[in-house]
Amino acid sequence: MKIAVAQINTSVGNFQKNKENIIANIVEAHSNDADLIVFPECTTTGYPQKDLLYNSDFIDQNIKLVHEICKFVEDEARNIMVVIGFVNKNSLTGELYNSAAVIENGTIIGTYDKHLLPNYKFFDERRYFTPGTRYPSFKKNGIEFGITICEDIWDDGYQDKPITELCNINAGIKFFINLSSSPFSSLKEAYRATTLRRRVEDSEGRPILYVNQVGAQDGLIFDGYSLFINADGYYVIIGDAFKESLTYVNFNEFTKEFKSCGVYFSHPQFPKHDELPKVFKAEGVPSYLKTNEMFKIYKALVLGIRDYFEKTGFEKAYIGLSGGIDSAVVCALACSALQPKNVVGLLMPSRYSSKHSVTDALLLAKNLGVKTHTIKIDEMHQAYNKTLKGINGEYKSDVTEQNLQARIRGNLLMAFSNDDKRAMVLSTGNKSEMSVGYCTQYGDMCGGLAVIADVYKTKVYSLAGYMNFLAGYFMIPKNTVEKPPSAELKPGQKDTDSLPPYEVLDSILMRYIEKQESYDEIIKGNFDPAVVKKILMMVDNNEFKRQQAPPGLIISERDLTTGRRMPIANGFKV
Amino acid sequence: MKIAVAQINTSVGNFQKNKENIIANIVEAHSNDADLIVFPECTTTGYPQKDLLYNSDFIDQNIKLVHEICKFVEDEARNIMVVIGFVNKNSLTGELYNSAAVIENGTIIGTYDKHLLPNYKFFDERRYFTPGTRYPSFKKNGIEFGITICEDIWDDGYQDKPITELCNINAGIKFFINLSSSPFSSLKEAYRATTLRRRVEDSEGRPILYVNQVGAQDGLIFDGYSLFINADGYYVIIGDAFKESLTYVNFNEFTKEFKSCGVYFSHPQFPKHDELPKVFKAEGVPSYLKTNEMFKIYKALVLGIRDYFEKTGFEKAYIGLSGGIDSAVVCALACSALQPKNVVGLLMPSRYSSKHSVTDALLLAKNLGVKTHTIKIDEMHQAYNKTLKGINGEYKSDVTEQNLQARIRGNLLMAFSNDDKRAMVLSTGNKSEMSVGYCTQYGDMCGGLAVIADVYKTKVYSLAGYMNFLAGYFMIPKNTVEKPPSAELKPGQKDTDSLPPYEVLDSILMRYIEKQESYDEIIKGNFDPAVVKKILMMVDNNEFKRQQAPPGLIISERDLTTGRRMPIANGFKV
Repeated sequence: MKIAVAQINTSVGNFQKNKENIIANIVEAHSNDADLIVFPECTTTGYPQKDLLYNSDFIDQNIKLVHEICKFVEDEARNIMVVIGFVNKNSLTGELYNSAAVIENGTIIGTYDKHLLPNYKFFDERRYFTPGTRYPSFKKNGIEFGITICEDIWDDGYQDKPITELCNINAGIKFFINLSSSPFSSLKEAYRATTLRRRVEDSEGRPILYVNQVGAQDGLIFDGYSLFINADGYYVIIGDAFKESLTYVNFNEFTKEFKSCGVYFSHPQFPKHDELPKVFKAEGVPSYLKTNEMFKIYKALVLGIRDYFEKTGFEKAYIGLSGGIDSAVVCALACSALQPKNVVGLLMPSRYSSKHSVTDALLLAKNLGVKTHTIKIDEMHQAYNKTLKGINGEYKSDVTEQNLQARIRGNLLMAFSNDDKRAMVLSTGNKSEMSVGYCTQYGDMCGGLAVIADVYKTKVYSLAGYMNFLAGYFMIPKNTVEKPPSAELKPGQKDTDSLPPYEVLDSILMRYIEKQESYDEIIKGNFDPAVVKKILMMVDNNEFKRQQAPPGLIISERDLTTGRRMPIANGFKV
Repeated sequence: MKIAVAQINTSVGNFQKNKENIIANIVEAHSNDADLIVFPECTTTGYPQKDLLYNSDFIDQNIKLVHEICKFVEDEARNIMVVIGFVNKNSLTGELYNSAAVIENGTIIGTYDKHLLPNYKFFDERRYFTPGTRYPSFKKNGIEFGITICEDIWDDGYQDKPITELCNINAGIKFFINLSSSPFSSLKEAYRATTLRRRVEDSEGRPILYVNQVGAQDGLIFDGYSLFINADGYYVIIGDAFKESLTYVNFNEFTKEFKSCGVYFSHPQFPKHDELPKVFKAEGVPSYLKTNEMFKIYKALVLGIRDYFEKTGFEKAYIGLSGGIDSAVVCALACSALQPKNVVGLLMPSRYSSKHSVTDALLLAKNLGVKTHTIKIDEMHQAYNKTLKGINGEYKSDVTEQNLQARIRGNLLMAFSNDDKRAMVLSTGNKSEMSVGYCTQYGDMCGGLAVIADVYKTKVYSLAGYMNFLAGYFMIPKNTVEKPPSAELKPGQKDTDSLPPYEVLDSILMRYIEKQESYDEIIKGNFDPAVVKKILMMVDNNEFKRQQAPPGLIISERDLTTGRRMPIANGFKV
């Protein structure tokens, strides 16, 4: 039995676009004699739909699309069975289900409702869906199979074990398919393998075909990487990484095994020392080139930018270039996602800016091929200072004047983007500074998308190194990579004036944010308790800033806003 | 049996403050010979705790506080039974429960776990808590009673009916108590009465004592209004409105009825025509004085501001005063909440500002007794224009220059607040303009709290009228109330240039947002379909602005962000 794995990029609510994509895939799979084609979770609607699920027109259009596909299959693709994700509604109770429809010869021959509804991190499925209670199986060419949807295979924390129960009730099941919209994190690939292996064991050796969405929706990024796993643990990635693909597997009913139909995706090769570009050679292979973490983060962020622009109807990006590492990395990512001709850099030096801030930014822009404007902010800064000091006398806090500079820059960026159709500002704050509030609200936090808001500063450096490795030279200038980080908002300022070194800061933050360790747990690590206390207080006290930040692309196990929901008025002190 | 109703204002995570408050109430109730004292839901931790619940130190401190209360009761208040809300943890599985502890003689004699966990609107309880499965009852002075927690009495949409089941299992139950942290909406009082009446029927006539939290947590406002309801439907509000109170009821075990111990709270009286201040007389009693809706909205917003400042450690508010109705209402509310000496108005006229914008704002400030600064923004505006036009030539879009003015004002407000310790900017956008995006990101949207973000423009006028009624004169100036609304960002601009009249706009918005009607449903009302389509598109397309807005005080059945969670990348078009 030949199965087509339709790893597609759906758009939330764009039924016309999703329909065209679904039908194009059915046509191609049908012409390649596939017996079955499988789509990702919530194929018709995109995922996550959020409160659009409360709109009855939205639900109706999703049902209508399923019927249109039935009609198309009846007319044009009678031999292929289609398994597609959609939202089902119990018209009596109004309850919604996250479901799969099985379509053959123009008829919905059955449906499966997702059992396990994730309601943690950025997931809110219990807000919308009722858990499925049925355990159906389906047949094609006389071969029985079971369907599961995303979380159903991640059953470790749940009492309901859909795969086990499906096997108990339908002993004839030969294999499982899983429709997923499983968001990327740089650590998830390993979990997936382990989890799938366990489910194969639970099912006494039934192989699983995992079909994942690809693309991005607001901050969430879906990595694709569709795959199958056989009883012996043989594990093959059959879907492309961070890209749409339509590929095929054969299921052999006698050996009960999947076999790939010859399509393999090339995975990133890790360089040997003598393959490194000259600029790296002196120091050997940097550690960030020894795993595929940076490859994945790079691909994820590029896809995240591209899809956010495409799905919101924007084309052009404005970025403030400070000569520092954060804005350089964001600019390089934007160029990969949108092409350099659609990226504009604004250099906005003040009297506190170092000379290298301009020269480093200009060199970056030249390397990337992006247009720049250089705008001195002093005249505007002086107009504010004159006005404000005329009323209030001298500033009481030097933070006031620092923030003012950042906000003038924010205004200029917004003015440029307002004046250029379909243009958006990209904000450049990293996860370390967003965590501790080392950033200015309405200043450097301005923008429509926070590209590296989920990337710690130490990883921003690795990402810069990885992009320079891809380019084969210091595309992100050597000086940008090597100089000590500074906000340059007052003379001689360095980040380490206010913060511990980033290696220490990031370790503490990873424990507090990703691992959700408490103060008592963190200080068991080798940290100065006073430093830990200070950092945790900074994180807590700056929640108000994060709640007004642009949506951030998510690449970690816990981002700062969607997956971590904290009160602003918070009386809990360590 | 004498029962103390401790309607207290808890603070999320502030265990020391909550402890002092709890103990002070126990001491007073004990000295008044109460047999039982009942506190609201999640008394120890405050509510909602959000992701603080993942912090093991936080859970531990909450358990520790329960033990400290036991110890205190043992030492100082042996005769009184204490029912208190806390978070229980199954130390084997790590599962959390939203629970009540029953304390007597220094011992926890039992606990009840909340069954029904709301996971809609701004509620996320399924994210954190496991539903209770036990149906215990408790006894004091030989009288058996049952405990429920908040949603447990709102069981209409659920299969589990805690009250009914508790009666089935414990036939001897004489009355119920309900510990609540039930957020205010201006429509909720009527729902509460109906719901409680149904539960009394379900329990075959057991009376219910409902003990609600009072206070505010970020955008949520808890109104208090604790009450009891007897078998015959006799319904008495025993807790104050929007204020802490400790009051008493007697339960008569023979008649099976609650009776108030003499404390009644005065409710707002609705004025007759000849009691109206002179300014209103000509027009008769305005409709917004014929119900207590404005009384409640006014009280709720004042409490919301006061608690947000107190619980985040701020004291002083800066408000941009445009001479318009929105900023006037916000300024008047801030004065009620924080005292006029802690409120500063900034007048920031431009060359497009009408003369009355300044005179109206100054008259308001004089009436309220707040300090003002007047700052002409032209010099800064010209500095931007000169710089930007030097690079880009003429502006292509007049929105650019309009936004720039709003953003200069935002910068000035932020500079003043940055330079004044413990000061916060209050943003002044109303629900109508926040819905359709008739506001400038990083401009008039700047601030730490969006005071009237959940109040439609038409209701802002009613609120102004109500406050003028309380004041007995046009405290909010007559001209501010009567002139046509304008953003004054270009010559002769009026809101109705871009928007339908507010009566029409607000009706459409209420259907789309509060009632979640779809386009097809809305046009069944008496609206121009083209206008409906335009408005719905404006709402959808401006989601990106709302997601970067300050937290807004919630007074309706559905606010724009916490209770309504929409995608930004949204391909669904009507």
